[in-house]
Amino acid sequence: MAHINLPEGFPGISGGFTYRPETAKPMRELAHVLLHQPNSLTPAERELIATYVSSKNECHFCQSSHGAAAACHLGDASVVEEVKADYLTAPVSNKLKALLGIAGKVQQDGKLVTAADVEAARKQGATDVEIHDTVLIAAAFCMFNRYVDGLGTWQPRDPAMYAQMGKHLAEMGYKEPSIKQPVEAVHSS
Amino acid sequence: MAHINLPEGFPGISGGFTYRPETAKPMRELAHVLLHQPNSLTPAERELIATYVSSKNECHFCQSSHGAAAACHLGDASVVEEVKADYLTAPVSNKLKALLGIAGKVQQDGKLVTAADVEAARKQGATDVEIHDTVLIAAAFCMFNRYVDGLGTWQPRDPAMYAQMGKHLAEMGYKEPSIKQPVEAVHSS
Repeated sequence: MAHINLPEGFPGISGGFTYRPETAKPMRELAHVLLHQPNSLTPAERELIATYVSSKNECHFCQSSHGAAAACHLGDASVVEEVKADYLTAPVSNKLKALLGIAGKVQQDGKLVTAADVEAARKQGATDVEIHDTVLIAAAFCMFNRYVDGLGTWQPRDPAMYAQMGKHLAEMGYKEPSIKQPVEAVHSS
Repeated sequence: MAHINLPEGFPGISGGFTYRPETAKPMRELAHVLLHQPNSLTPAERELIATYVSSKNECHFCQSSHGAAAACHLGDASVVEEVKADYLTAPVSNKLKALLGIAGKVQQDGKLVTAADVEAARKQGATDVEIHDTVLIAAAFCMFNRYVDGLGTWQPRDPAMYAQMGKHLAEMGYKEPSIKQPVEAVHSS
């Protein structure tokens, strides 16, 4: 049960978003700009950064929903699991590997990012905006993950629910709720 | 020097905000709702939560600017220093102490917040919205702090600059930039 009286049947962040629309609006908008709007990083690359950071923060809801969005963009769920397990050996570009290295440092503490980390990403072709957005995606997921976990939200274990949510996020983005009605708590903890 | 080519003379988060207005807009709006709009928690209480979390994340720019905003609301800078040093002995209400306890756990990991922490805050009169907003302020500053530090932004050491910024934030809130022009790098590192 959530720590406060969140509306029932709204998993993860949708519980907090439904409870407090005033804060949901800018949080949705930030996710939409960072993950969905046109960018020289593909939506799949940006969802992989979000998933990796959420996985390091051990947030079940966020790593599952954004992992499903990444899998939908890629048409392949295995890459997502490989990035989470060890991004250095995963079948992604060297540029994305360098950016994931920066994201992993930001997840711990922004001060850990060094000029050498940034130079390494530039050598693989990363632009300043891509480095900026990587830092901010990693920082933002340190917020989203803590919000979802800190409220004790309902985080179902049913992979089918996340697959459906990921498809909606990949196709529609983040401006509008992906879950507008309470969902059934079937197969979930 | 910042890790990427941020505009010169814009300290801390104003560097990132000036560089990337598309993400600045929702980030400003979130801060404005959480810290400045009418709320049963006073602006001073909310700025103290933001300052405390930023201090635990060792973000010089954020703890100095929000600490100055809190001091401006309170008309007293000593309370800010006492909260940062040991909030349990600081001259703040028992309700705020319970909420700072929750914020400190969210700063580490949202999953550390327990039903007992939330119950303790309720016993001191905290409402569900106040608990929600405390969790989200703490989570949001884990984003702002990482963004400011992860970009390697310029973080001046001049207390007078932060006092001026804190006054602007306390009076005007977060929707509009507190720094619209490059500032002089006098007395700063």
